[in-house]
Amino acid sequence: MDQKGYHRGSFQSGTSDEDMLEIAGASLDFSVADDDPPLDREMGGFSSYNGGGMNGTSTMLDFLEEPLPGVGTYEDFNTIDWVREKSRDRDRHREITSRSKESTWALLHSVSDAFSGWLLMLLIGLLAGSLAGLIDISAHWMTDLKEGVCLAGFWFNHEHCCWKSNTTFTDRDKCPEWKSWSQLILGHGEGAFAYILNYLMYVIWALMFSLLAVLLVKGFAPYACGSGIPEIKTILSGFIIRGYLGKWTLVIKTITLVLAVSSGLSLGKEGPLVHVACCCGNILCHLFTKYRKNEAKRREVPLVALCAAFSPSTGVVLSVQVPTVLCCAPQVSYYFPLKTLWRSFFAALVAAFTLRSINPFGNSRLVLFYVEFHMPWHLLELVPFILLGIFGGLWGAFFIRSNIAWCRRRKTTRLGKYPVLEVLVVTAITAVLAFPNEYTRMSTSELISELFNDCGILDSSKLCEYVNDFNSTKGDDLPDRAAGPGVYTAMWQLALALIMKVFITIFTFGMKVPSGLFIPSMAVGAIAGRLLGVAVEQLAFYHHDWAIFSGWCSPGADCITPGLYAMVGAAACLGGVTRMTVSLVVIMFELTGGLEYIVPLMAAAMTSKWVADAIGREGIYDAHIRLNGYPFLEAKEEFSHKTRAMDVMRPRKSDPALTVITQDTMSVEDVESIVSSTTYSGYPVVVSRASQRLVGFVLRRDLIISIENARKKQDGIVSTSIICFTDYCPPLPPSSPSVLKLRSILDLSPFTVTDETPMEIVVDIFRKLGLRQCLVTHNGKLLGIITKKDVLKHIAQMANQDPESILFN
Amino acid sequence: MDQKGYHRGSFQSGTSDEDMLEIAGASLDFSVADDDPPLDREMGGFSSYNGGGMNGTSTMLDFLEEPLPGVGTYEDFNTIDWVREKSRDRDRHREITSRSKESTWALLHSVSDAFSGWLLMLLIGLLAGSLAGLIDISAHWMTDLKEGVCLAGFWFNHEHCCWKSNTTFTDRDKCPEWKSWSQLILGHGEGAFAYILNYLMYVIWALMFSLLAVLLVKGFAPYACGSGIPEIKTILSGFIIRGYLGKWTLVIKTITLVLAVSSGLSLGKEGPLVHVACCCGNILCHLFTKYRKNEAKRREVPLVALCAAFSPSTGVVLSVQVPTVLCCAPQVSYYFPLKTLWRSFFAALVAAFTLRSINPFGNSRLVLFYVEFHMPWHLLELVPFILLGIFGGLWGAFFIRSNIAWCRRRKTTRLGKYPVLEVLVVTAITAVLAFPNEYTRMSTSELISELFNDCGILDSSKLCEYVNDFNSTKGDDLPDRAAGPGVYTAMWQLALALIMKVFITIFTFGMKVPSGLFIPSMAVGAIAGRLLGVAVEQLAFYHHDWAIFSGWCSPGADCITPGLYAMVGAAACLGGVTRMTVSLVVIMFELTGGLEYIVPLMAAAMTSKWVADAIGREGIYDAHIRLNGYPFLEAKEEFSHKTRAMDVMRPRKSDPALTVITQDTMSVEDVESIVSSTTYSGYPVVVSRASQRLVGFVLRRDLIISIENARKKQDGIVSTSIICFTDYCPPLPPSSPSVLKLRSILDLSPFTVTDETPMEIVVDIFRKLGLRQCLVTHNGKLLGIITKKDVLKHIAQMANQDPESILFN
Repeated sequence: MDQKGYHRGSFQSGTSDEDMLEIAGASLDFSVADDDPPLDREMGGFSSYNGGGMNGTSTMLDFLEEPLPGVGTYEDFNTIDWVREKSRDRDRHREITSRSKESTWALLHSVSDAFSGWLLMLLIGLLAGSLAGLIDISAHWMTDLKEGVCLAGFWFNHEHCCWKSNTTFTDRDKCPEWKSWSQLILGHGEGAFAYILNYLMYVIWALMFSLLAVLLVKGFAPYACGSGIPEIKTILSGFIIRGYLGKWTLVIKTITLVLAVSSGLSLGKEGPLVHVACCCGNILCHLFTKYRKNEAKRREVPLVALCAAFSPSTGVVLSVQVPTVLCCAPQVSYYFPLKTLWRSFFAALVAAFTLRSINPFGNSRLVLFYVEFHMPWHLLELVPFILLGIFGGLWGAFFIRSNIAWCRRRKTTRLGKYPVLEVLVVTAITAVLAFPNEYTRMSTSELISELFNDCGILDSSKLCEYVNDFNSTKGDDLPDRAAGPGVYTAMWQLALALIMKVFITIFTFGMKVPSGLFIPSMAVGAIAGRLLGVAVEQLAFYHHDWAIFSGWCSPGADCITPGLYAMVGAAACLGGVTRMTVSLVVIMFELTGGLEYIVPLMAAAMTSKWVADAIGREGIYDAHIRLNGYPFLEAKEEFSHKTRAMDVMRPRKSDPALTVITQDTMSVEDVESIVSSTTYSGYPVVVSRASQRLVGFVLRRDLIISIENARKKQDGIVSTSIICFTDYCPPLPPSSPSVLKLRSILDLSPFTVTDETPMEIVVDIFRKLGLRQCLVTHNGKLLGIITKKDVLKHIAQMANQDPESILFN
Repeated sequence: MDQKGYHRGSFQSGTSDEDMLEIAGASLDFSVADDDPPLDREMGGFSSYNGGGMNGTSTMLDFLEEPLPGVGTYEDFNTIDWVREKSRDRDRHREITSRSKESTWALLHSVSDAFSGWLLMLLIGLLAGSLAGLIDISAHWMTDLKEGVCLAGFWFNHEHCCWKSNTTFTDRDKCPEWKSWSQLILGHGEGAFAYILNYLMYVIWALMFSLLAVLLVKGFAPYACGSGIPEIKTILSGFIIRGYLGKWTLVIKTITLVLAVSSGLSLGKEGPLVHVACCCGNILCHLFTKYRKNEAKRREVPLVALCAAFSPSTGVVLSVQVPTVLCCAPQVSYYFPLKTLWRSFFAALVAAFTLRSINPFGNSRLVLFYVEFHMPWHLLELVPFILLGIFGGLWGAFFIRSNIAWCRRRKTTRLGKYPVLEVLVVTAITAVLAFPNEYTRMSTSELISELFNDCGILDSSKLCEYVNDFNSTKGDDLPDRAAGPGVYTAMWQLALALIMKVFITIFTFGMKVPSGLFIPSMAVGAIAGRLLGVAVEQLAFYHHDWAIFSGWCSPGADCITPGLYAMVGAAACLGGVTRMTVSLVVIMFELTGGLEYIVPLMAAAMTSKWVADAIGREGIYDAHIRLNGYPFLEAKEEFSHKTRAMDVMRPRKSDPALTVITQDTMSVEDVESIVSSTTYSGYPVVVSRASQRLVGFVLRRDLIISIENARKKQDGIVSTSIICFTDYCPPLPPSSPSVLKLRSILDLSPFTVTDETPMEIVVDIFRKLGLRQCLVTHNGKLLGIITKKDVLKHIAQMANQDPESILFN
């Protein structure tokens, strides 16, 4: 058996958590990577770190004098050991601190090391903010390009183009400089032919954008598709997906995000923006030794980037809260020091101010949708708000089920083989359906702000075309009025837009282009909310003598605000899809700058969560995590089954005994044969097979690298050499070959639990400490091992066995 | 040895964590309880739970069929075992769920059990909101009582009294119905004699209020003093202080809080309000079996109450965030399920709306200080803001040091023997100094709102007495103007007020009356801020041609907002004292409803935190926790020393071997002698003394109760009976007495670590899992034990040894 054999063995096999990825009965989403393997360039982002280590050609400053390069690193698709990584970071820190007393240079190094964290966060903030601004501006411009072009300069979007020349308020969108395609080609913009030409151009541009996007994703960065949030959740929890946060993913995702948004597909940019920011953070990591060399430390960076990415859309203060709740609420405090939160806050601040100086929204407020409503709401309006909550919950559950079913279909049938065609077909359908309807033709975020808007006197929108009756106007408030023909038309168009969005979004989310869910979900809710709002308003106007209205809604008074209904509906739908009630309300409240409307939002969002939870427990991101089989240990739900460690540990009763290594009696050959005949990622080391007293735990990867290295470089190490894991090795007969001491790679503090420990406690330990494996003992004797994989499988099993028990939680 | 002996032993002694309480070299703050033992009535709040259990007369529905009442309960001043408590709650839950399938009644029970949590939170919200309103209204009225009385009805406060009769805007405070004491007694309010009379009445009322407060606290509820936040932090982390959240504490603290605030002492009501709300929650717990019977579950309630108590002062959304950051950020996610956060949010909402319906602030906004500023700030103003941050940090560190020094003096010298006299002296000094100065005579929260206020055209306050120059007014904004004589007077008075507040607060916080720190800290900062703000404003007005001003501060423009400086200063000081930057900024931002001012606040708060941290690491609450020696395992700081479990565990190398019990060879007598000769709170059970293989862990208390019970009720249990902890007891000769089986009280899943485990990991395990003790093994043999006590002692030792290492963290 030569050394190459090991390598093959170690890379082939079950040492990674890959078989883990089949828990949900689904294969890895990255299976596209089989057809289109991630480029070598893609992997390049990491190669200096890991590849370099593997080849033993590490040239970087090695403070800790790691005995062997490669020892202590992880393979792709493995889970990191938080305890070990954090210990290593603390060791490094201690080393630097103790050296700092020796020389001035070392002191300087120590200080710069301490400040490098803040510097990194500053850079992340700057970069994330700039990218967010860039994406926003480009997407805006390209969206308008589908309709026409600015003669004053093709790089102006419609709004900028007409900025200076708007003379009358109602005609502000029609300026001589802005030419629709028909105007440009035919010379006039009226008539059926011009309409058809515009239609055609719209569809063609959309197809071009989406084709380019999907080709770029497919050709250069398969990881750039989707929203990225499920994967980032998993990565934050300690899983390794090399290249997922690499520089190619960054470049391609940034470009394709703009293309995808501009193509008019029913998708948002918030989720992918998070992924882009995380890529930035991860790449910037390489500038700082502290972060480059530690997997646990490095995971602080996506977290910070997450916050930075959210700050432009949710405001600075809450940007820190939203993503932590969204992604990893308890994990954050389990695995990251409190300091990380300060840094996140700082980065979010920097990002928000960077974005503000670029100023894509054109107003000075740091919120996406700014609304002010004039009227307070009445307690009775809680009834429609709760109805909106129910709608949001139903839609959320329906969306998750259908989307997951469709994604599973894509994975398992031939459908998945034609991602480009799929994107083109969906884009074509979307564009063809969208153009005739004013409300689907405009970009989704424009639609949402129009729906949120409270009709003022000067509003020229169709949604505000009420029958005017200025006599009854009191002060600033507009009284409730009868809906004019414009409103009725708008209602029909919105109803059609609702139906279209509900269905098309199911097929859009999960395609091979970057796609977020925030904006489409909110759009569905906002349309439903506005429809209901206008209905209630008209009801109140025509029937203000009804008992339910008579108390608070007198004729000529302004009592119903349809814009508020839209906002509440948006919150409900977002809640139904993502299941994050409190933070959701907080987002909405910050998005809109309203303080008084917390109760309506709260009522709707909680109803929505309850309704959706009753149908299916998982939010869309968790559902996708499970679909893709990532080893993510959900911290939200308590494990409440009465199983014990002995029921879960391996070996099972019928299996052969646990593979162990003895501390000082096995030869290199023995160990090699154990390593090659098994695929475990690590082996317990015991005093002797007879006693089964546990000494420590050694990782397969470390063992292979160390033996290989010793054979190469150490004299006298042959197949019959005894491997000794103790401090004092037993005396050997003089003729025997020299002893291979491997104490340094032995983990002397493996976690152990007794066989009687309830699994709920074991699950808790795995969650809170971020373990990879835990050994099981009985009366001091080693019995078996439980890995994270086993825990996840067990949880999945128990959930399948007894699905109703969770209802009572 | 009779059974009584055990009891004496178990209550006397080190089974509790009492010796723990001397870590910091200080004795328990509750040592007053030696002179004035907490009343039996005080303990009554708990007796139905614990006492009932102890006497075996439990009449409540016993779902879990606990074999022995008392087994599984804790003694006072002990730390709970989170793992065990949570397991018990899950067992209970499983039991109810599985029974719910058997009968309709059980199903109903199961449903009501599931909803009881929400019901409890509703009640807590209602009660906390009502109490907050009640305290606010009473304190307002009694504060005004020091100055005069309302003839229209003595129960009106000054503002309400003059509500209807205010005719002119400037004279709104002078109405015929409101009589100052001199007017009432002398018939007129002018002249030196009237002034002296008013002065005298003011001091007398203040003394009366504070005397009553301290007598009530001393006589009926010693736990009602102080802010309560350090103790609640400790209780939330799992420590048991019986009666601390009892009904007498609630009643007395509510009354004395009103008295203390009204007496004009330099203290706030936010902290004590939290304590009051927690008492409410704890008392309401007794209505629900689920909470009454489980110590872990019961700790969710103070947390929720905390949020409910904060909601009136910080707004609903963030009320949940503030206390969690304030008290126990990581603990919350370690020990409590995510569900608790929803419930907290719900309770906060209810409390806020209850308070709003009582409406003590008289406006409809749910924030304490609502300010709107007209002008944005300029980047250069960051310099004074950062100066304010430095001031805040210096003051915070100075305050903490002096206050702790003074409190230690109070504990150790004869000073502590005269709490009533101390309170009277401090009140007298405060009142005598406060009356002549307008800004100290008014209540501190009024002072803060006045300082935060931006001067409008109509403001009649002295602080706004600028030289008027209405010609240059543009629109709504008031331009910067020269300060008038009123402003100069105000500046002098404020400077004096600042000096007084800085010193008097040090002596006030920690006296035997309820006292919070939020308001006094904010007042100090707000005064300093306003002073600086006016100075900068005048500088800019007179020297607008200076290079630093010329760019942005032209003559006749409004460029400096002194109110903003006051707000920033308040944030900085609050940050310096409590060290909670982000949440602090969030509080301030919500308190004032301003969104644009996040950067100034942030800059000042972070500077303040850094400065203060550089002088001393601890916030005031942590300092008091350490002063009082509570066993609180700080989650913020990482333990970064390279010690191992074997260095911390007991027995030390020179000590006799660990006291263990064998699983099936010891007699009742043997065990009794071990229990009576040692004071450990638990004993490891091993297979045999020779092998030292660990079987489980048995708690002293459970052991004593079980043996006592068996001797009483079980036939044939005598001193020579063998105690057997295994399932299958070894066969005994027929003549021997029957075997006492104690398998049921044996914890079969004790936590173990190896002797080589780094202490940083051990500390992490203790923190995250909430352990009481952990066993140490080497190669499968039991070596020793580490308790929470040992961990805390070790951390304290290491921090003393190497205090500078933390600077680099």
